[in-house]
Amino acid sequence: MKLVVVGASGRMGQALIRIIAETEGAVLHAAVERAGSSALGKDAGELAGLGALDVTITDDALSAFVHADGVIDFTRPEASVEFAALAAQARIVHVIGTTGCSEDDQAKFEAASRHARLVKSGNMSLGVNLLSVLVQQAAKALDAAGWDIEVLEMHHKHKVDAPSGTALLLGEAAAAGRGVDLKDKAVKVRDGFTGPREAGSIGFATLRGGSVIGEHSVLLAGEGEIVTLSHSAGDRSIFARGAVKAALWARDKNPGLYSMLDVLGLADTN
Amino acid sequence: MKLVVVGASGRMGQALIRIIAETEGAVLHAAVERAGSSALGKDAGELAGLGALDVTITDDALSAFVHADGVIDFTRPEASVEFAALAAQARIVHVIGTTGCSEDDQAKFEAASRHARLVKSGNMSLGVNLLSVLVQQAAKALDAAGWDIEVLEMHHKHKVDAPSGTALLLGEAAAAGRGVDLKDKAVKVRDGFTGPREAGSIGFATLRGGSVIGEHSVLLAGEGEIVTLSHSAGDRSIFARGAVKAALWARDKNPGLYSMLDVLGLADTN
Amino acid sequence: MKLVVVGASGRMGQALIRIIAETEGAVLHAAVERAGSSALGKDAGELAGLGALDVTITDDALSAFVHADGVIDFTRPEASVEFAALAAQARIVHVIGTTGCSEDDQAKFEAASRHARLVKSGNMSLGVNLLSVLVQQAAKALDAAGWDIEVLEMHHKHKVDAPSGTALLLGEAAAAGRGVDLKDKAVKVRDGFTGPREAGSIGFATLRGGSVIGEHSVLLAGEGEIVTLSHSAGDRSIFARGAVKAALWARDKNPGLYSMLDVLGLADTN
Amino acid sequence: MKLVVVGASGRMGQALIRIIAETEGAVLHAAVERAGSSALGKDAGELAGLGALDVTITDDALSAFVHADGVIDFTRPEASVEFAALAAQARIVHVIGTTGCSEDDQAKFEAASRHARLVKSGNMSLGVNLLSVLVQQAAKALDAAGWDIEVLEMHHKHKVDAPSGTALLLGEAAAAGRGVDLKDKAVKVRDGFTGPREAGSIGFATLRGGSVIGEHSVLLAGEGEIVTLSHSAGDRSIFARGAVKAALWARDKNPGLYSMLDVLGLADTN
Repeated sequence: MKLVVVGASGRMGQALIRIIAETEGAVLHAAVERAGSSALGKDAGELAGLGALDVTITDDALSAFVHADGVIDFTRPEASVEFAALAAQARIVHVIGTTGCSEDDQAKFEAASRHARLVKSGNMSLGVNLLSVLVQQAAKALDAAGWDIEVLEMHHKHKVDAPSGTALLLGEAAAAGRGVDLKDKAVKVRDGFTGPREAGSIGFATLRGGSVIGEHSVLLAGEGEIVTLSHSAGDRSIFARGAVKAALWARDKNPGLYSMLDVLGLADTN
Repeated sequence: MKLVVVGASGRMGQALIRIIAETEGAVLHAAVERAGSSALGKDAGELAGLGALDVTITDDALSAFVHADGVIDFTRPEASVEFAALAAQARIVHVIGTTGCSEDDQAKFEAASRHARLVKSGNMSLGVNLLSVLVQQAAKALDAAGWDIEVLEMHHKHKVDAPSGTALLLGEAAAAGRGVDLKDKAVKVRDGFTGPREAGSIGFATLRGGSVIGEHSVLLAGEGEIVTLSHSAGDRSIFARGAVKAALWARDKNPGLYSMLDVLGLADTN
Repeated sequence: MKLVVVGASGRMGQALIRIIAETEGAVLHAAVERAGSSALGKDAGELAGLGALDVTITDDALSAFVHADGVIDFTRPEASVEFAALAAQARIVHVIGTTGCSEDDQAKFEAASRHARLVKSGNMSLGVNLLSVLVQQAAKALDAAGWDIEVLEMHHKHKVDAPSGTALLLGEAAAAGRGVDLKDKAVKVRDGFTGPREAGSIGFATLRGGSVIGEHSVLLAGEGEIVTLSHSAGDRSIFARGAVKAALWARDKNPGLYSMLDVLGLADTN
Repeated sequence: MKLVVVGASGRMGQALIRIIAETEGAVLHAAVERAGSSALGKDAGELAGLGALDVTITDDALSAFVHADGVIDFTRPEASVEFAALAAQARIVHVIGTTGCSEDDQAKFEAASRHARLVKSGNMSLGVNLLSVLVQQAAKALDAAGWDIEVLEMHHKHKVDAPSGTALLLGEAAAAGRGVDLKDKAVKVRDGFTGPREAGSIGFATLRGGSVIGEHSVLLAGEGEIVTLSHSAGDRSIFARGAVKAALWARDKNPGLYSMLDVLGLADTN
């Protein structure tokens, strides 16, 4: 499968180039950066520390897409919207790992998906996506009267917000399993006199320190037993790996807007 | 729901009596011990440390069953087979937590289930049963080429075998998710020069110490990420709790031989 | 060693009676309750579920102490102060697990310790006391510029305050190792935009759920590595066990006010 | 402090060059490879992905050492023995992370240390070295009759031996704390009927999977409580970081053969 990487000189772009190089059935077809980037004209492989791949970084996305099979995109919302239009025109798969998209952007992706194959997710890691499905099922199976749900996360000392987006995503999955709204149930602060835990609430706890890339656990604590579902990220390449897997998966699918749950074959288990 | 406890003076019997007493919608109707037991004639509640419940321990199972709604049974295979016949005759639910049953015993339970409602499981804990479903799904979603499965368990220092039955049950769930036979894939010993890990194998590791009731983890380790699914048992009452829940669930079901996965509403997700 | 249990009919008193019964070298000499208690006149062993021990619960502490070797006391501050005077008079060991003592009470224990042997600690578990020593050493060895300290605890859903007293005790140990004041460094809330972690701070995170007796972890997170020091309590008898061990240890010591660190032989490693 | 890296083009050599570049008070003075290496003549910084540092890789160790303050060496035993002689001659600090040294090699390092400052350890990570000290203390404080010691480790799927060298190092620390010989107490296999755990034994359990760099836990399990001391390595740079710290520490010390425990200020707590 001939893949284009957009945002090719960024940290995620370079990771994508390395993962494509090591993935059977995938080949780097083109590498795109925005006009004015200092990376234009350089070899994408050399930039990614792989040695020359004979793929020169270009700002001509349309030419890059026209003979390709798919494009992988961890850029910015406004760029991703443009790439979606170009990818639909070129009839190639578009994998979108971009975060921070508005409802308006989302509507444009949905419009594009009438004729094109898009895969979009807030976290491209296979493990986290699987975990969210398992959390939803567990929250559904273990009732709120008897089982307390807590979400614990740890990240490096530089992270400036809490809880992490992925912790909230897992909390949403738990709330969906319970058929409740996370906003009504989330407890993010415990300090001093708290009173006993409210049944049905979903607690969050946050650890910060060192260079931890991302640890997430969802605990379901009942009388005398605890079920814990965890994900540990050791390496940022997992997001690139998930995106390449998504592209390969989408190749022979019908037009539509898919999520990583579709890629994992778990979309219908909830 | 009027429940009978058989094996009422044993450790599990007493736990069942205590859990029934604290469960809304359940009441202890009778308590049965085998002929010759020193507990015959005593009050079941006093024996369980609850104070008198006006339920005298008897060896007349048939009379105990006749006006009851269900019987809970953690005894021995030969006794459970007899109780299954009596329960079918009395048209009451039969929850079986007995372990070590032969294929022949199993055939008898299946015969009884044509007209009666039986629930049988090797581990009555809600959490472990849920975990086995989640493990099967995770093993199916995360392919063997990229994800290595390991099962870790810890039990108290008195345990005489390894790995635990529950660790093997979880390994079976993983193997089922992969569509392989655990016997072909299990690796239970690693010592000295082992060579690299064989893709697709399922490893077991065993810890023993102190008074640990039961800790089980299934790890799915990929490049740069790990998904861990764990269960921690803090209290043996969880097995009694699961059995009482199973009895309440089965009350309005059609005849059949059910598992705890049915009770949890997860039987069809695999 | 002939031991007296005061507060003999309470939950801790009963646990103490059971632990003394199973400890080699220790024997229950007397059991004391306050005047007016409904337990007076009952057999201490029967109350604790052990069968008769021929020790009748009394409110005459002085007679109980006079031929004993030691008294174990998890009562209330004002009672413990009185028992300290009686124990000093009877020249027997006094082990104090009572919490909530004022500075004035503490001064009285110190006065008593000029002629008597007292052991007093806020947490009698061997494991927690050892952990506090190890945490202090780790915090001292791993400098604040490179290593971030976080304290995580989980307790049952009924607990009404956060962080737990033991989490704070461990935070104090970390602060002592760093030579700082915990009050200046503790971070107990993280929600929304927090900014990057402040070097040298000590974070706390709290989980609540189920019936968890007490889990505590201290993490020291550096670049690329984490050291985690944890304690898991599975059973409230550990506090009784630690107290009996303290009594046996103190038997041949000189007068003084000792802590569990002395009992563990770790008092001089900090 | 002017530092030389020997084995400069290897994976550890490059990591050392990167860590020296980011460490205040340290500067890369020279970079040495063996005669015939294809890296000779290249810029050490460029090889390590840092851009040019104006340090050309050379095979002339003696010239490299003569105006330096220290040398860091993760090479092979025979090379390290030679470097020790040269470092002693140049009166510079020699940090040795080389593994697999014979008793004969060790004798040569000891001979060199009469006039020179050497720091040598089987694992240069600060965290693992601290952990080994804490494990020894815990094993000493918690007696073998009541507390069972287990060592758990996990590494990537390519590792060919079990248990890991670091797991054995931690087991040795536990055995030292107990005053026993690990060879007599280690239990590395549990499969099938094992019988109850033998008091005083030290168990090992091994997990393999994914790309895990190194996880180690030592559990001390008593009745009703567990103390767990763990280390998690997320990044191979921690070994380089420890070595550079060791060099800086040794700069103003007297001649001698030091360990990482000396560097951490924990050598005398055991």
